[in-house]
Amino acid sequence: MAESWATLGIDLHLEPTGAGGLRRGLTDALRDAVRTGRLAPGTRLPSSRTLATDLGIARNTVADAYADLVAEGWLTARQGSGTRVATGIPATVGEAAPAPRRRVRGRPTHNLTPGTPDLAAFPRTEWLKAARRALTAAPNDALGYGDPRGRPELRTALAGYLARSRGVRADPGNIVVCAGFAHGLQILAKVLRARGARTVAVESYGLSVHWNLLTDAGLAIPPLPYDERATDTRAIPDAGAVLLTPAHQFPMGTALHPDRRAAVVDWARRTGGLVLEDDYDGEFRYDRQPVGALQGLDPDHVVYLGTASKSLAPGLRLGWMVLPPSLVEECAAAKGNSDGCGVLDQLTLAEFLTSGAYDRQVRSARLRYRHRRDALVAALTARAPEVHVTGIAAGLHAVLRLPPGTERSVVQAAAWQGLALHGLATYRHGHADTDPLDALVVGYGTPPDHAWTAALEALCRVLP
Amino acid sequence: MAESWATLGIDLHLEPTGAGGLRRGLTDALRDAVRTGRLAPGTRLPSSRTLATDLGIARNTVADAYADLVAEGWLTARQGSGTRVATGIPATVGEAAPAPRRRVRGRPTHNLTPGTPDLAAFPRTEWLKAARRALTAAPNDALGYGDPRGRPELRTALAGYLARSRGVRADPGNIVVCAGFAHGLQILAKVLRARGARTVAVESYGLSVHWNLLTDAGLAIPPLPYDERATDTRAIPDAGAVLLTPAHQFPMGTALHPDRRAAVVDWARRTGGLVLEDDYDGEFRYDRQPVGALQGLDPDHVVYLGTASKSLAPGLRLGWMVLPPSLVEECAAAKGNSDGCGVLDQLTLAEFLTSGAYDRQVRSARLRYRHRRDALVAALTARAPEVHVTGIAAGLHAVLRLPPGTERSVVQAAAWQGLALHGLATYRHGHADTDPLDALVVGYGTPPDHAWTAALEALCRVLP
Repeated sequence: MAESWATLGIDLHLEPTGAGGLRRGLTDALRDAVRTGRLAPGTRLPSSRTLATDLGIARNTVADAYADLVAEGWLTARQGSGTRVATGIPATVGEAAPAPRRRVRGRPTHNLTPGTPDLAAFPRTEWLKAARRALTAAPNDALGYGDPRGRPELRTALAGYLARSRGVRADPGNIVVCAGFAHGLQILAKVLRARGARTVAVESYGLSVHWNLLTDAGLAIPPLPYDERATDTRAIPDAGAVLLTPAHQFPMGTALHPDRRAAVVDWARRTGGLVLEDDYDGEFRYDRQPVGALQGLDPDHVVYLGTASKSLAPGLRLGWMVLPPSLVEECAAAKGNSDGCGVLDQLTLAEFLTSGAYDRQVRSARLRYRHRRDALVAALTARAPEVHVTGIAAGLHAVLRLPPGTERSVVQAAAWQGLALHGLATYRHGHADTDPLDALVVGYGTPPDHAWTAALEALCRVLP
Repeated sequence: MAESWATLGIDLHLEPTGAGGLRRGLTDALRDAVRTGRLAPGTRLPSSRTLATDLGIARNTVADAYADLVAEGWLTARQGSGTRVATGIPATVGEAAPAPRRRVRGRPTHNLTPGTPDLAAFPRTEWLKAARRALTAAPNDALGYGDPRGRPELRTALAGYLARSRGVRADPGNIVVCAGFAHGLQILAKVLRARGARTVAVESYGLSVHWNLLTDAGLAIPPLPYDERATDTRAIPDAGAVLLTPAHQFPMGTALHPDRRAAVVDWARRTGGLVLEDDYDGEFRYDRQPVGALQGLDPDHVVYLGTASKSLAPGLRLGWMVLPPSLVEECAAAKGNSDGCGVLDQLTLAEFLTSGAYDRQVRSARLRYRHRRDALVAALTARAPEVHVTGIAAGLHAVLRLPPGTERSVVQAAAWQGLALHGLATYRHGHADTDPLDALVVGYGTPPDHAWTAALEALCRVLP
């Protein structure tokens, strides 16, 4: 009769050794479980009857073992509360150790590094409401192994939203949901390499973590020149693809000039090359409507990549690719079912988009970030007139041009004052032709509201 | 004054061409957006005032363009309801197309393929409650880019649970959360290959999708013999690692014999090799306590891999690895932040584990599956005495031994009757030494409760 094992109480795995008799074996096994922390202090043990049935031994043997351990102080027994693991025993198993590979020299007091939105503004209540609606409405099949492209509800919602808000020409069948931009780039790198591509041209400024994903896949990453019209796409080398941030160059903050937009589409058509459009913060433009997605010009040669990391939170690990039809099957196969993209968050985001909650969140964030940007510009005008601010028409960060030769010392001074800050050098391609500029990349979206004023103050203090 | 763009209504991206005047350009752009489906039927457009401000043009121009399109039938205007996209216009953008690469010949009526639990039993209400508690309690930082090992809350909860229920020796610092078993295996294959391993021995029966992940990483996968004591681990070839399902061989359903457990640990210690323990359904043992995890015998040489795919749902995309300390850093780096594992589901699972909801779910599922197993055995005894059932002590599937030479015809007959069923041949390693056996692998966990009896009936009809 194994009813108790199968259905009652908590699961407790024990392997009595048998050496020295059953009682002794069980006592040793329990003591060992408590000593090593496998049984945490305060855990309620099964009743002696239940455990005896589970282990197929006499109830008295269990009761005796419990009594021994109560006597030894490992367990406590109280009327009405059952037998529990005693508290106050130092466990040998610790709390989660700190992350490896990160030496934290004291957490900075202020954080103005770019790339993360204000996490305090994540719409928790709205998200939970959408999750409830989405999970309640979901068919059972949605919880199984699904289409590697992602849930159809989300792909349909994204197709509508991206067409409406970003001018993307999207069919739900050509969308592949992924775990953020980097995951999408990883999939594309694999597919491009399998197709025989050897090179993906990149911008002179960008994120090395993205470049590394390309080189890890065996692709060369020559940089394109950067000038006042943003990235020079007129002379893309013999490359299978080019990776661009057309709406808002990261980190320089400029929009790709219309001539350059035309040039890159022309290049793609002429050579059969592929444009990878990183639209990481396309929703955040402040003074006029954002420039539409490049993908709208030529959906057969441009892959549109978007993410919820800036508009909602990176922790969601949700992004999307709108693919030329000819790439869908390969990308879905390269993604497979083995990594990422839980269906519950996918269904919730679909509900968030179709209910209008996403638009509301983006608009409220846009307002908050624009106020911060205005405060940043005002503070710099007043307190650091030497510093020239650029790239402020959109996004969650600004570029602060510094007097030549001062970038490194400013970043260092900031670190000493507990202000995390990145210099432009962090984002410069190792083989970029362009002259190095001294500048800071200030992520004004990062701090929560209550910390923003103090962070801005700390920034002003370290500027020349 | 860009207030309206930034904060009001929905986002609507339009690019008036300017050719033929502003009114004409805007009319063309709107018509095009409706025609191509970018603006879905019924969508409410911004007021003419709002859109005029957004586009930086006169309000009358917008009002005129709207009026033109109402006259043409693309839009409708009603007092109090504003201007909307007319319904009844056939959009050129379709619904999500069916998944590529899958030719579905009509969905089968009954599904007894193994690998998926009863998705109707997913505890939606409990999960949503846990999600609310978890998201409410989460610090803002949790929503950012995090530790590639996964959330500390979940790793701490898993360490406690796995120690208690499966005898795993786990420190939260040595756990890496991943997007299911296959994702973990992919990470390990990458790390093993980078360490110079060329071979991972596998079992004679298993899942080709897992074997392919290993060969994709450049690893050879020689099969180990299989006999009545399960996989023969006494003669593991010169391999860097071995992949095993010790608690419940998949799909044969036997537990690895104690001698074989000892032999594989001995091999690992002697050669410095690594044992990859796939504990895919370790919680589901029916007649006595499950055999503990092999990892407990030697945490320095065994990687324990578990998953929520069988105990909760594959759609969660959540699994975990308990690693030897020497592998943690490499595996965390190989995983990186680019794929998978949204924090909300991680936090919810942590709450599910610590609140006891996970234990309750496992116990209730165990009871349900045991009843199904009993019904399966009873039905076979009565109606197909020629068929010998094995592997029924645990798990969500059973192996039905068939008379020699009949497997293929039974699977085919089942397909014709709308019953999805896998023969054992599906799971046999191409180079396995063992004689092929005729058998079915019946996943009795797969159907929802209401469909189970009919599925069992359909199975009995096709058996010899």
